[in-house]
Amino acid sequence: MVGNAIATKLAELGHEVRMGARDAANEKAAEWSSGASERSHGTFADAAAFGELVFNCTAGAVSLEALEQAGEEALRGKVLVDVANPLDSSGGGLPTLTVCNDDSLGEQIQRRFPETRVVKSLNTMNNQVMVDPARIPGEHDVFVCGEDAEAKEQVTELLVSFGWPRERVLDLGGIEAARGTEMYLPLWLRLWGAVGSGQLNIHVAH
Amino acid sequence: MVGNAIATKLAELGHEVRMGARDAANEKAAEWSSGASERSHGTFADAAAFGELVFNCTAGAVSLEALEQAGEEALRGKVLVDVANPLDSSGGGLPTLTVCNDDSLGEQIQRRFPETRVVKSLNTMNNQVMVDPARIPGEHDVFVCGEDAEAKEQVTELLVSFGWPRERVLDLGGIEAARGTEMYLPLWLRLWGAVGSGQLNIHVAH
Repeated sequence: MVGNAIATKLAELGHEVRMGARDAANEKAAEWSSGASERSHGTFADAAAFGELVFNCTAGAVSLEALEQAGEEALRGKVLVDVANPLDSSGGGLPTLTVCNDDSLGEQIQRRFPETRVVKSLNTMNNQVMVDPARIPGEHDVFVCGEDAEAKEQVTELLVSFGWPRERVLDLGGIEAARGTEMYLPLWLRLWGAVGSGQLNIHVAH
Repeated sequence: MVGNAIATKLAELGHEVRMGARDAANEKAAEWSSGASERSHGTFADAAAFGELVFNCTAGAVSLEALEQAGEEALRGKVLVDVANPLDSSGGGLPTLTVCNDDSLGEQIQRRFPETRVVKSLNTMNNQVMVDPARIPGEHDVFVCGEDAEAKEQVTELLVSFGWPRERVLDLGGIEAARGTEMYLPLWLRLWGAVGSGQLNIHVAH
């Protein structure tokens, strides 16, 4: 769902988008890309090789595995926007995290792919809000973090093209700050319960 | 600092307040209570026995130990507002949490003192904002969670007396939601860095 929302938005904005999946014949990806020249689909490796900029929209618990399939070579030097959250839903109640506190998925990805420029962003809201921030009334914010300032600027420009006011894109620093945005998820899940909808986001008042 | 801020606010609002410390002769507590009839100080046990409602403002890493000193008997049946965060600052960088993900300090306290009505609140902001929300411009929110609805209502009324608009007090459900508000701390620490000040709080836009 996250990949579909972001890929659709990017295609609407005029970008050529290749959606990757484990299997090149993935039905949802095939359906998504059918009949539109700017849309295509393939394996994770195909998508990573095709993209100038790559979004990781896989489930956080399997993101490293999916990125292995994408391949270190295909990801080398590229900006990788990590939208995933390392949620573990196996426990019965609300999900917990598979990694947190002294590490994060964003850091794990950056360590595994040191020549890829990882920017963690958009993981603090649902996919509809990611690509259409105006559906939430009032001011609310999106975060970026990562080691490469130029990569963060590129991602910020993309976010602005998605409809995010530039001043609502908050730079939290290096990729270690992914601990902060991923560990916000347990609060986000409860805010969803409290307001009765996933159509929510936070604004940092100061 | 947190205890001082909350105790001072409560005293200003006309409540009789006893500040507890490990040592009854604690200098800061003695200084705080000198010369004001509604202010007194003593051990954790003295404060717990005195209070109709008790605030835990101790460092999260030692809160259970401090509450043991307060005593199960003195805390029985009372509302305990847990303001603490289980921060571990021993690592050199930004603090991590001593408990998180599948447990929280709020839950640990509720489990240890099952006949005490624990309400987790106010732990998502600095002590100046806790007792003077108007110092942050615009709308921003404070959370309560706990197992006892009446206890949450009592705490909500206290928060309103601190200056929080009632509609800005969000009930996140049972004490398990303390995982959410405590795990927000790693994000809060980075927001502090991003906005350059701890005078910040979040608003849930929806």
